[in-house]
Amino acid sequence: MQEQDKALIAQAALAYVKPGMTLGLGTGSTTRYFIDAVGKAVDEGLKIEAIATSIETEEQGKRLGIPMRQLRDVEQLDLVIDGIDQIDEQFQVIKGGGGALFREKLVALQAREVLYLADSSKFVRQLTGPLPVEVEPFGQTHVERLLADKGISYTHRETAGEPFVTDGGHLILDVALDRVPDVAHFVRELKSWSGVIETGYFERQPDHVLTLEHGNIKLLAHPTLRSGGGIV
Amino acid sequence: MQEQDKALIAQAALAYVKPGMTLGLGTGSTTRYFIDAVGKAVDEGLKIEAIATSIETEEQGKRLGIPMRQLRDVEQLDLVIDGIDQIDEQFQVIKGGGGALFREKLVALQAREVLYLADSSKFVRQLTGPLPVEVEPFGQTHVERLLADKGISYTHRETAGEPFVTDGGHLILDVALDRVPDVAHFVRELKSWSGVIETGYFERQPDHVLTLEHGNIKLLAHPTLRSGGGIV
Repeated sequence: MQEQDKALIAQAALAYVKPGMTLGLGTGSTTRYFIDAVGKAVDEGLKIEAIATSIETEEQGKRLGIPMRQLRDVEQLDLVIDGIDQIDEQFQVIKGGGGALFREKLVALQAREVLYLADSSKFVRQLTGPLPVEVEPFGQTHVERLLADKGISYTHRETAGEPFVTDGGHLILDVALDRVPDVAHFVRELKSWSGVIETGYFERQPDHVLTLEHGNIKLLAHPTLRSGGGIV
Repeated sequence: MQEQDKALIAQAALAYVKPGMTLGLGTGSTTRYFIDAVGKAVDEGLKIEAIATSIETEEQGKRLGIPMRQLRDVEQLDLVIDGIDQIDEQFQVIKGGGGALFREKLVALQAREVLYLADSSKFVRQLTGPLPVEVEPFGQTHVERLLADKGISYTHRETAGEPFVTDGGHLILDVALDRVPDVAHFVRELKSWSGVIETGYFERQPDHVLTLEHGNIKLLAHPTLRSGGGIV
């Protein structure tokens, strides 16, 4: 059921992709459906260029014949389409379950417009975590000691029993938020610690979120967004 | 002349290494002399263990027969001895000319005591830079745009005509400080940018600095340090 929702939302997102756009492609299960849909459209003649947020997405895009560019070679990024892990009522977002949070965040920061895809399971009253925190391996013990000093628990992200390693060669700690009253404030502190590369709290909030409500596709605008603006 | 000063200071630093210590070993030209001196002392029976701040230092230590440990395996780090690039009258320090700033900083943060070695050319009234900034390659264009927006100039660190790559796989921008009135404040902002791994401004200031004044070895204490404290 949830897989079907993801596929429906991803298919609907294609309506916002216009010819000539430079498109940021996210990473994860929902985005995978979207990239498939983009591949099909390109096959049928749609002219776009795309930037990938992970090696996985880069490979999927190339396999489908989507013209893939590098972030550093692009003047402007028109629209980023990506999945999320959690979104609250103020459009605060946690991402990074797929492990590509650092590149996803950099691509989002450089985009003119950000559209996230989220089935109903992603909406929460307030962010509960866990918050993925990308850590340089050499700084791991230092960061873990600082978290322990604050009484904050965490787990080491693993894959098949081995430490999960990001495309950039870093580790991920999944940090519990139950003792964190203000996530935005906590994230600013985390970022000041040596060894922390990035967190899954996305300072650049989405302009729109595409979701499914009672079986119907619905486009939600950011609470502060004036109507009529933007590409979407 | 300067090489001779470095060798003299490095030799004098050996007096602060006590049997049983776990020692952090820095990276760079002055520290290289110090590691040679430690190697000789170990050869003559001194029992210590050491942590390296770079692959270069790790290899030099091993070659000299110094027992090298990994940072994550060490309970306590007694003393770090390292070189610096610039130090001002308030003991604000810039390091990272050798390209190992991230690991040097993490080792300094975990040390009970920090002793830096500095010939007279390293002392300045106020920090003039350049400030080394370690950047994740994927975030390079984003960071460069933010610097350009602030009208701050920088150069790409290179080695033999190729981009210099740190032990962690990152790049270094050498950032001019002539338009930066408050370096500590600027560094806090830099660290909040996605793509910035670390800077060469060391928040953990040294407890002591060992230098050469009119041909005599001199130990300078941190301005706020009470006399009689510390290992040194």
